[in-house]
Amino acid sequence: MNQTKGNIMLGHGSGGKMMHDLIENVFIKKFNNNILTDQTDSAILNSDLDNIAFTTDSFVIDPVVFPGGNIGKLAVCGTVNDLAVSGAIPAYLSVSFIIEEGFPVEELEKIAESLAAEAQKAGVSVVTGDTKIVNKGKCDKLFINTSGIGFIRKENISIGKGSKVAPGDFIIINGTIGDHGMAVLNARESFNFTIHIESDCASLNHLIKKVTDKHEVKFMRDPTRGGVAAVLNELALKTGFGIEIEEDALPIKKGVKAMCELLGFDPLHIANEGKVIMVVPESDVQSVLEILKNDTLGMESSAIGRIVTEHQGRVVLRNQTGGSRIIDTLSGDQLPRIC
Amino acid sequence: MNQTKGNIMLGHGSGGKMMHDLIENVFIKKFNNNILTDQTDSAILNSDLDNIAFTTDSFVIDPVVFPGGNIGKLAVCGTVNDLAVSGAIPAYLSVSFIIEEGFPVEELEKIAESLAAEAQKAGVSVVTGDTKIVNKGKCDKLFINTSGIGFIRKENISIGKGSKVAPGDFIIINGTIGDHGMAVLNARESFNFTIHIESDCASLNHLIKKVTDKHEVKFMRDPTRGGVAAVLNELALKTGFGIEIEEDALPIKKGVKAMCELLGFDPLHIANEGKVIMVVPESDVQSVLEILKNDTLGMESSAIGRIVTEHQGRVVLRNQTGGSRIIDTLSGDQLPRIC
Repeated sequence: MNQTKGNIMLGHGSGGKMMHDLIENVFIKKFNNNILTDQTDSAILNSDLDNIAFTTDSFVIDPVVFPGGNIGKLAVCGTVNDLAVSGAIPAYLSVSFIIEEGFPVEELEKIAESLAAEAQKAGVSVVTGDTKIVNKGKCDKLFINTSGIGFIRKENISIGKGSKVAPGDFIIINGTIGDHGMAVLNARESFNFTIHIESDCASLNHLIKKVTDKHEVKFMRDPTRGGVAAVLNELALKTGFGIEIEEDALPIKKGVKAMCELLGFDPLHIANEGKVIMVVPESDVQSVLEILKNDTLGMESSAIGRIVTEHQGRVVLRNQTGGSRIIDTLSGDQLPRIC
Repeated sequence: MNQTKGNIMLGHGSGGKMMHDLIENVFIKKFNNNILTDQTDSAILNSDLDNIAFTTDSFVIDPVVFPGGNIGKLAVCGTVNDLAVSGAIPAYLSVSFIIEEGFPVEELEKIAESLAAEAQKAGVSVVTGDTKIVNKGKCDKLFINTSGIGFIRKENISIGKGSKVAPGDFIIINGTIGDHGMAVLNARESFNFTIHIESDCASLNHLIKKVTDKHEVKFMRDPTRGGVAAVLNELALKTGFGIEIEEDALPIKKGVKAMCELLGFDPLHIANEGKVIMVVPESDVQSVLEILKNDTLGMESSAIGRIVTEHQGRVVLRNQTGGSRIIDTLSGDQLPRIC
């Protein structure tokens, strides 16, 4: 009997034959590489570089499939991007699944396929994993944790850390904001909006490397939960400088803008999963924008604002009519389970 | 308002101020170290050794607190042990929490404290983390993923891998079997057994190092889900040799034995969380046992069986009366959510 068809049963998490078959048939095949195939408790990696970047992220997004991606693809992009914005070259991923009893194996396979495809695209290997099954009703379909290891050359260790940020520096983003959050919300709720919005979910490591190979990026961060507002507020607090953003420089898709207006959201607070904020000196702005715009993941890149000496520790948005307002970090959640 | 008292709210997973406060007050304080305090997306680690071991494990145990430990302590022990049985010196952990809305912050703090205390005991640093909150009813209280990095010196790379296992080698375990599984089951169900059973949940890296510093351990594995039976069957399949276990050499606590008999479980299939199975040549058995027995985590160590040329690929249990039976791996689960 092939026990990896149909729906997930509690026995698939047992450490017994059913779990073995599930791992063999659904996971190992898709993440195929020599390190994983060993199936020991730890993956053994080789390193001849100096510093290791290590990150972790659990994904609990609802729904698990959304326009532009699914939880598997997202779990790779999220962790790869966390490594890349730290100046690291992402190399290895662990993948741990918590699966609700009754989840269709076919759907799990599709998600594992997306995960494997995105890992290949990003150039990272899934080298170790874990699978737990919980009784029906004890988790919501599927949660995935990906932890990641990347390597940082000694000379790149300060990339993106923010310590060199100075007034006059520019803030760049590689495209439209709010796409991921609105796509997921639109898929989750039954708004009957005719607008089609796709998540921007993408691995940015190759794009980021193109920039950092040629330019010193003083600060780099992916604006996920909490959106652009959270990242900029963190930067303002960290540096003690002020930040000014130009409203008409913010790239926003029409559909996202319309949906935000209807629902009363500020796109600056909405999660992105394929965006990076970079702070670069004024002298580098045009060249960085050129590199970004020549990549499919950066075609709508824009310099959205700059570091200033005024209103220290605060982020201020200037609008087209000359008015301005403070952009704060939200206290709680606008949108739960968006990643 | 201090938003990190009382119960977990969805806003604690938002990327906003509430999440920031939760992380600061509940987690960072407890896992305090310079790498974590940076709070960037990836922890940056230094390595001057040759090989990196990398492992991941999600913990979904029910109940989250049990005699002998809780999910926080377990999450450290499980990942530390996976690294240690791979011949690695565990060094760094990531910790990712998935928390159900409404979970008491006080309980979360206690669990985080246990986690921090066990990490300190094991000599590992929690260097990166993540927190997700899901709506009430969408997960069962609290799940924790820990991923771990350890370092393996080049000369130790074959430790515990099994490639040198040969007939005549002995199989050693560092104490009683089945304690964890029965302790958790006893805490979960309302059997009204008067027996007190404690989980064996412990980090074994220091104990293992004492042995591997002096002896070549040919195969090493922690018998968690699937129990001793799963590990030995894996070894038999991997090497192609047979394995013989002596029933009267198996250390089992009276209470565990009684509970297993009452419920119809075989203790060989029950999960342990503080046990390691080692395969060593006959010449090393006494010395290895002496090292183990001199440690509080190995006082009841025993040589439970040996590698044989007969019944290839199978594990056979010999009982006191001279009879024998095959010990197979179970197909599904005896006990779900035991780790």
